[in-house]
Amino acid sequence: MTAHIIDGKLFAENLRGRIAGHVERLKTEHGITPGLAVVIVGTDPASQVYVTNKAKQTAEVGMNSFKHELPGDVPEAELLALVHQLNADPAVHGILVQMPVPKHIDPNKVIEAIDPMKDVDSFTPANVGKVQIGLPGPVSCTPLGCLMLLRDHLGKLEGKNAVIIGRSNLVGKPMMQLLLRDNCTVTVAHSRTENLPEVVRQADIVVAAVGRPQMVKGDWLKAGAVVIDVGINRVPAPEKGEGKTRLVGDVDFASAAEVAGAITPVPGGVGPMTIACLLANTITTASLINGLVPPSDLTA
Amino acid sequence: MTAHIIDGKLFAENLRGRIAGHVERLKTEHGITPGLAVVIVGTDPASQVYVTNKAKQTAEVGMNSFKHELPGDVPEAELLALVHQLNADPAVHGILVQMPVPKHIDPNKVIEAIDPMKDVDSFTPANVGKVQIGLPGPVSCTPLGCLMLLRDHLGKLEGKNAVIIGRSNLVGKPMMQLLLRDNCTVTVAHSRTENLPEVVRQADIVVAAVGRPQMVKGDWLKAGAVVIDVGINRVPAPEKGEGKTRLVGDVDFASAAEVAGAITPVPGGVGPMTIACLLANTITTASLINGLVPPSDLTA
Ligand SMILES: NC(=O)c1ccc[n+]([C@@H]2O[C@H](COP(=O)([O-])OP(=O)(O)OC[C@H]3O[C@@H](n4cnc5c(N)ncnc54)[C@H](OP(=O)(O)O)[C@@H]3O)[C@@H](O)[C@H]2O)c1
Ligand SMILES: NC(=O)c1ccc[n+]([C@@H]2O[C@H](COP(=O)([O-])OP(=O)(O)OC[C@H]3O[C@@H](n4cnc5c(N)ncnc54)[C@H](OP(=O)(O)O)[C@@H]3O)[C@@H](O)[C@H]2O)c1
Repeated sequence: MTAHIIDGKLFAENLRGRIAGHVERLKTEHGITPGLAVVIVGTDPASQVYVTNKAKQTAEVGMNSFKHELPGDVPEAELLALVHQLNADPAVHGILVQMPVPKHIDPNKVIEAIDPMKDVDSFTPANVGKVQIGLPGPVSCTPLGCLMLLRDHLGKLEGKNAVIIGRSNLVGKPMMQLLLRDNCTVTVAHSRTENLPEVVRQADIVVAAVGRPQMVKGDWLKAGAVVIDVGINRVPAPEKGEGKTRLVGDVDFASAAEVAGAITPVPGGVGPMTIACLLANTITTASLINGLVPPSDLTA
Repeated sequence: MTAHIIDGKLFAENLRGRIAGHVERLKTEHGITPGLAVVIVGTDPASQVYVTNKAKQTAEVGMNSFKHELPGDVPEAELLALVHQLNADPAVHGILVQMPVPKHIDPNKVIEAIDPMKDVDSFTPANVGKVQIGLPGPVSCTPLGCLMLLRDHLGKLEGKNAVIIGRSNLVGKPMMQLLLRDNCTVTVAHSRTENLPEVVRQADIVVAAVGRPQMVKGDWLKAGAVVIDVGINRVPAPEKGEGKTRLVGDVDFASAAEVAGAITPVPGGVGPMTIACLLANTITTASLINGLVPPSDLTA
């Protein structure tokens, strides 16, 4: 078998197209221009790249993009004050503080300061809880992206055995909630799991969010399984020249693609979905803040 | 094999003893008398029984017990006003509104009105989220009780395969969080699960929270599995006389006890743990409200 390659780049492009349509509708029908504020502390180059991409895509779908850059030694109180100011600003429907923040700042304090109504990362306890309970609100971006790709490829997920490898607050745990809500039988595995390959072999759906390059091998998979590879790992690529690197996922793509029914590539799979889902969440929060029902095609 | 019978009644008794010790310590060392307020709306006889038991056990461990009875036709606004008053009352460290509330009242509104710091049922989105994230706070009572029984019987749960049957907000989902936090590989099954007996047969730990009398049979179990039966179902018991009933769990005790390594009986297993854990949560919230570290033996 050679797996169908799930094209996350194309799906994300189409999703941004749908989002642009919703922005247009919110503007013309309701006089609302959704606005996303991004706060970055310090000059970490990777964070700068993310933030620039987010701002660019936010503007492209017709939303207002607000960027706040604070120096790396900004006092915690000043960052919290900015968050409170954004909480109070009616033009802002989404607030994202780019993580990680410098060590002298407590990330939990920052997260808890964000108004859950504007918490487009779904990091606040209240939003994490709402996802479990099944109440409307923003949903963690990367898991939401994975869910959209799975629904698009499989139609209904009901009754499928899903195995998630990884239980981070960022990916694994919210993914478990979303797959459970879509009526999968869900198993969560992690570093203390025994006989991991055997556990993975039960799965119709595998979501790998581990951070270990090419860990999941083809012979861990049930024939025909759908594999979502969340991992983004930079590894040496001497074949490209001395000191060169390349990106690989948590799944060994070559061997997995021989066994799986479908698989997301790295790059070009889950990666492009995350920012698109951030924009989707901003539509969700802009709708809820204004007492409107959020579009069902942009959330879980 | 004949299973070890896990004595939840005895464990709960000992737990209440430990709680009484913590109450005494809070009083003498910190001048705090933990207080639990229970609100009951209407005259449902089952709810009355629960509330009376809660009040009795609260007093027995040395806490203050506050009981508020409202008529079945009380306006929603009046119930919410009472909740706000209890939120503001420094003598109250835990607030429980007995569910279900009458149909004209929105239970979500009531739950969201409770200050998460006093939400000893762990029903508010913020507390549900904190359990997932791993922040300190109250934990759903029945799952906490199950966890305590499992830890007591097994010691470490790390690496065990746990299968939870049922995904309710009350039991199944918080149970999943707690077993994941204790390093089990966790599977959640429900009414859309395919081949349920086969899924259950993988489990070292089975938690049944389904609400279907005696559904889980002995031949669904791996030899030596530890079985926690959350179910409380009243079924006809003609052998006791005409119109008589008896309580059974979600597990077929007779056949399961032949295969399991250990099992909780119904009654006398999980049931007695729930109120004891409500009192444990009240110690947790009373500690957190007063800036003290909650006792580690009363929480997850
Ligand atoms: N596409 C995107 O936009 C996107 C977004 C976020 C993350 N990512 C990528 O996704 C990956 C995971 O990210 P994360 O934030 O979830 O990582 P994380 O917080 O480091 O969590 C990794 C998880 O994998 C588990 N794990 C580690 N080694 C394992 C092993 N040998 N076997 C089984 N499980 C193991 C860990 O288990 P324990 O809990 O037991 O330690 C943990 O639960 C990373 O490569 C990251 O770069 C991509
Ligand atoms: N000991 C205590 O103090 C205590 C406390 C609370 C509850 N309980 C008892 O525990 C039981 C469960 O309570 P609950 O509140 O969690 O119940 P619930 O809200 O009715 O949830 C039942 C769960 O079981 C699943 N289910 C139903 N039929 C099934 C089947 N044939 N196969 C597999 N799964 C099935 C349902 O799946 P779907 O989600 O797909 O519908 C649902 O997730 C009840 O007997 C209750 O009385 C005891």
